[in-house]
Amino acid sequence: MNPSRRELANAIRALSMDAVQQANSGHPGMPMGMADIAEVLWNDHLKHNPENPGWWDRDRFVLSNGHGSMLLYSLLHLSGYDLPIEELRNFRQLHSRTPGHPEYGETPGVETTTGPLGQGIANAVGMALAETVLARRFNRDGMDVVDHHTWVFLGDGCLMEGVSHEACSLAGTLGLGKLIAFWDDNGISIDGEVEGWFTDDTPARFEAYGWQVIRDVDGHDPVEIRQAIDTAQAESGRPTLICCRTVIGFGAPNKQGTEATHGAPLGEDEIAAARQELGWNHPPFEIPQDIAAAWDARERGRQAERAWRERYDTWRKAHPELAAEFSRRMQGDLPDDWAEQTRARIAELQETGGDVATRKSSQIALDAFGPLLPELIGGSADLAGSNNTIWSGSVDIREANADGNYIYFGVREFGMAAICNGLALHGGFIPYNATFLVFSDYARNAVRMSALIPTHNIHVYTHDSIGLGEDGPTHQPVEHAASLRMIPGLDVWRPCDTVESAVAWKTAIEKSGHPSALIFTRQALPHQPRDPAQVDAIERGGYVLRDADEAPEAVLIASGSEVGLAIQAAESLSANGIPVRVVSMPNPGRFLAQDEGYRDSVLPPTVRARVAVEAGVTHYWYPLVGDGGKVIGVDRFGASAPGKVLFENYGLTVENVSQAVRDSLQARGA
Amino acid sequence: MNPSRRELANAIRALSMDAVQQANSGHPGMPMGMADIAEVLWNDHLKHNPENPGWWDRDRFVLSNGHGSMLLYSLLHLSGYDLPIEELRNFRQLHSRTPGHPEYGETPGVETTTGPLGQGIANAVGMALAETVLARRFNRDGMDVVDHHTWVFLGDGCLMEGVSHEACSLAGTLGLGKLIAFWDDNGISIDGEVEGWFTDDTPARFEAYGWQVIRDVDGHDPVEIRQAIDTAQAESGRPTLICCRTVIGFGAPNKQGTEATHGAPLGEDEIAAARQELGWNHPPFEIPQDIAAAWDARERGRQAERAWRERYDTWRKAHPELAAEFSRRMQGDLPDDWAEQTRARIAELQETGGDVATRKSSQIALDAFGPLLPELIGGSADLAGSNNTIWSGSVDIREANADGNYIYFGVREFGMAAICNGLALHGGFIPYNATFLVFSDYARNAVRMSALIPTHNIHVYTHDSIGLGEDGPTHQPVEHAASLRMIPGLDVWRPCDTVESAVAWKTAIEKSGHPSALIFTRQALPHQPRDPAQVDAIERGGYVLRDADEAPEAVLIASGSEVGLAIQAAESLSANGIPVRVVSMPNPGRFLAQDEGYRDSVLPPTVRARVAVEAGVTHYWYPLVGDGGKVIGVDRFGASAPGKVLFENYGLTVENVSQAVRDSLQARGA
Repeated sequence: MNPSRRELANAIRALSMDAVQQANSGHPGMPMGMADIAEVLWNDHLKHNPENPGWWDRDRFVLSNGHGSMLLYSLLHLSGYDLPIEELRNFRQLHSRTPGHPEYGETPGVETTTGPLGQGIANAVGMALAETVLARRFNRDGMDVVDHHTWVFLGDGCLMEGVSHEACSLAGTLGLGKLIAFWDDNGISIDGEVEGWFTDDTPARFEAYGWQVIRDVDGHDPVEIRQAIDTAQAESGRPTLICCRTVIGFGAPNKQGTEATHGAPLGEDEIAAARQELGWNHPPFEIPQDIAAAWDARERGRQAERAWRERYDTWRKAHPELAAEFSRRMQGDLPDDWAEQTRARIAELQETGGDVATRKSSQIALDAFGPLLPELIGGSADLAGSNNTIWSGSVDIREANADGNYIYFGVREFGMAAICNGLALHGGFIPYNATFLVFSDYARNAVRMSALIPTHNIHVYTHDSIGLGEDGPTHQPVEHAASLRMIPGLDVWRPCDTVESAVAWKTAIEKSGHPSALIFTRQALPHQPRDPAQVDAIERGGYVLRDADEAPEAVLIASGSEVGLAIQAAESLSANGIPVRVVSMPNPGRFLAQDEGYRDSVLPPTVRARVAVEAGVTHYWYPLVGDGGKVIGVDRFGASAPGKVLFENYGLTVENVSQAVRDSLQARGA
Repeated sequence: MNPSRRELANAIRALSMDAVQQANSGHPGMPMGMADIAEVLWNDHLKHNPENPGWWDRDRFVLSNGHGSMLLYSLLHLSGYDLPIEELRNFRQLHSRTPGHPEYGETPGVETTTGPLGQGIANAVGMALAETVLARRFNRDGMDVVDHHTWVFLGDGCLMEGVSHEACSLAGTLGLGKLIAFWDDNGISIDGEVEGWFTDDTPARFEAYGWQVIRDVDGHDPVEIRQAIDTAQAESGRPTLICCRTVIGFGAPNKQGTEATHGAPLGEDEIAAARQELGWNHPPFEIPQDIAAAWDARERGRQAERAWRERYDTWRKAHPELAAEFSRRMQGDLPDDWAEQTRARIAELQETGGDVATRKSSQIALDAFGPLLPELIGGSADLAGSNNTIWSGSVDIREANADGNYIYFGVREFGMAAICNGLALHGGFIPYNATFLVFSDYARNAVRMSALIPTHNIHVYTHDSIGLGEDGPTHQPVEHAASLRMIPGLDVWRPCDTVESAVAWKTAIEKSGHPSALIFTRQALPHQPRDPAQVDAIERGGYVLRDADEAPEAVLIASGSEVGLAIQAAESLSANGIPVRVVSMPNPGRFLAQDEGYRDSVLPPTVRARVAVEAGVTHYWYPLVGDGGKVIGVDRFGASAPGKVLFENYGLTVENVSQAVRDSLQARGA
């Protein structure tokens, strides 16, 4: 006799409670509660091939309530991914492939890193959007080479988080019909019964977003679950929320339905009782042969991929150029002539560049490189005209059947950044997302996640520093450049002119699989002269932009909008007989990662008189100027006034910078 | 003949368009669109006294769409606040009282700093909550000394932001009946017509939150507006959203109804046309006498406050102790015996403290100081048991008529922090809000706003560093302590044991009007011995915790969970003949703000061999160790494994720290 659906689901429950117990750490409640839903979805609906987790047209499955990681590890193990039982035994241990929360890149079949609540659903919106836009570009003549669903599990925590509002509202507007989410409506969050702090009518909320909502599904009844999924898949113009009533910790007779099952091992006694309750008489980490066989999805997966591959081959023969582009993009390769083309365009910009705001320089870079990159997709959080994110090749994705590349994100910074993480993870795109630098705060954890996952996500931040002027301190980032530089693996650029801006964009595009943050000004900055070697050196993050005629006695280090100021100060000091070198340092993180020889060639160890200038908090720069150095910056919040008035008022002047150099020289002499 | 309502509203329109034109910068569209609503609210309903903006029982008015600041400045000027017309002429200029976005403390009558969208409504939720809880505690025998409304203007931008979901959902659950918000439904955001990116059924969304929603109000019809406000005020158990259809830039005949009016001056021609359209024939910044007189709210305000004051005096005589508490709390004073009591309790903790996690130490501090402070109110974002935010005196605010002090915020970090800003701004409370340190990211801009406004808001962050263990890198803050320290004016503590934790709490409570962030561990830390002088020195941010028997050759600097490690390393080095001083530095920002004499006494300039240890990004510490120093820290993301395994794996070991001291000594010798 074949195992029952409940028995199949109980395999998840047993693995989850046992792994958490073994680790003495983890979250059994959600996997036990959502096991029946997961069983139906994975065994009856999910299109995937465990033997090829990278299959381009697989369905994406996202566990937005990522603390329930044992649900996902159980599914991956049972369905036949390369995740042996030893890995489940090693749940939450160093170097295992089963970390506490699912981590992309650590485990085959994990589509994104989740745990920070609400971001999984936002990533999924990005994946579903990727599918929609790719399908429009590549599907031809009924040959749908892009045709898959994005499935999401989420809980009350995700729904309480603001980012779920941003992402789900936009998903409704965009009509992402292949996005299907399951709400684990178990009535419990960590502090207890949610009715004390979460009384939303969630179905009504999602209907207000324009979703199809399937209410009142018994999350432990496979027939109801299956029907709901069928209804969801039948809808093509709206995303679907399936509301599943579940019992958290289902099967643990004394703890189920309470927060006690959420985030701690059940304990040996309760696990024994659960085994009895569930009729699961097998030792920990042992799955009976019949249940294992029923779960094994490898043959089904092979067939599914084979069917797709036949379609793909037919399509490829009919559309060889499209197929070449599709395959290049899905592999994350840049066009063959990328290096040559970008080098030529940057050299040209060095010749022709004028004194413009670097937000304009950013747009110039988009216009220079965008035509090479059909995979470039992006937009702004309702600041298109301010962020200069629309370039000559931008096409609105909302246009009917448009092969689009521009997204109007609305005022949704966090959702935007997390959606772009999903776009990048799906493959086929290099996303960029833009807002004012100060509002990078709103997206902060999605920026962090772009570095942690990591994703090839380009964060574009304009309106840098007090230089933006009249909007005042709420809009003037003073700590943000430094704060972003603290995020491990985030490549942060603060360019000083059009050429540095173009190099920043070029390197950001080339950093396949990794994020960058590009910081641009609202105000115009002077174009700087450079020879080709200097242009090449920009990528090193810091380089000599203007050297002294003789051996420098002091070095001025500056980034972005203060490079021009440093040049002026150096000229003034030189005229007064003090030879000063100016180092432009658009990316100090990159500079610090260069070899010692290069660093010493730019900042000679013998020159201890060093002054750094940046219109932001000074603390960041002390390691670069050293014990004898000075930093001119902004260690308090800004003010509302024209930018030039503020620069004067905050002491970012030629006089102050020059004086700091003299002081630093004197301190060394003393 | 009295001026018409439209004429009164046109005064706002004229002042707004003229001030923006004069500044050549700003946002005329919203003030012109919401002028009629504002006119009705301020002239017919708002309870306030322009001559006493600090009146405790005034209504609070919050401009969540703060870019429309000229609306508020016009209202304040016209109704009689100390904001002369010269200030409006100086809109957006340095040192004016009319900054680009409303700033608390800069302008009388401005209740909070707004501009970062969605946070004003969240602040307002905090203010309305403050009113509710204060009313429960202090109103007696029908004498309602606390009885006022909180009014909010908000736009599509606020509604798109996730924080509006968090705050409004919670406001619905809490049933804040005196919170009344006006949605400026003008169909336009910066990128154009919102229908392309914002298609929520907003009334249905707010009904799903449990709000009373008044639909379809003509925002230019005073009768409809007035009726809606009456209906809103009649409802006591639910917050109200009044949905007002408006025309952005109303009155500018060629630009109204389009994004062209949003964020730029209308231009001289359009302003002339608007004057004609509106029938406003007065020069810029001139208000005809009859209109000025009709707006003047001073006499009405005096009467309103007088009526309240009579009630208050009767109440005070009947309840002198309650009145003393109310007045102390509203003035932001601490109890008279605060200094004495806290000193005694901290001394006691020095005697009795054990080896516990500092999250537990934080709870011990709450138990020590909480009984002194009925104004302490707070909670956690669904992590009460993990953040240890519930102390023995905690009473749930949801209990019927409870004189409560504990808030179950749900999983809403950003909303929570912004609500607490509002609680603090209202007066009568010292709020604290808690989550895991890594999720300070979610609240990041509200934390920034607490420093910028500033507010007396205490941010409690547990589960510091990789030390939290198995939950893995998504939950392990490595850059957060350093990043928080970059925010100007935020007092950031990372204490090493129960005594430092208590001092951190004490100083945070004493920092009237200013925010602090307190960072605590999940794992147990050793209690450190100290003499009374050392206990006193903790407040300086850094102090000698363990000195060498002879003149130190090296200094170890550590914070929080690494202080114990530094002590062990110092002991090991001492045993090998290297005298080492250990400096505990729970708050490097405070330490750096001490005078040079103190700093040099702790970090002797002659001792250049310095090693800092902190389980976070190293860059922050280089200025403290100097050119000859070393930093042991964590410059990559964490991993999922038991905390102790991670400390070992990431090199936070006695051996590594000792070796770094030897290396630093050798570098100095070389």
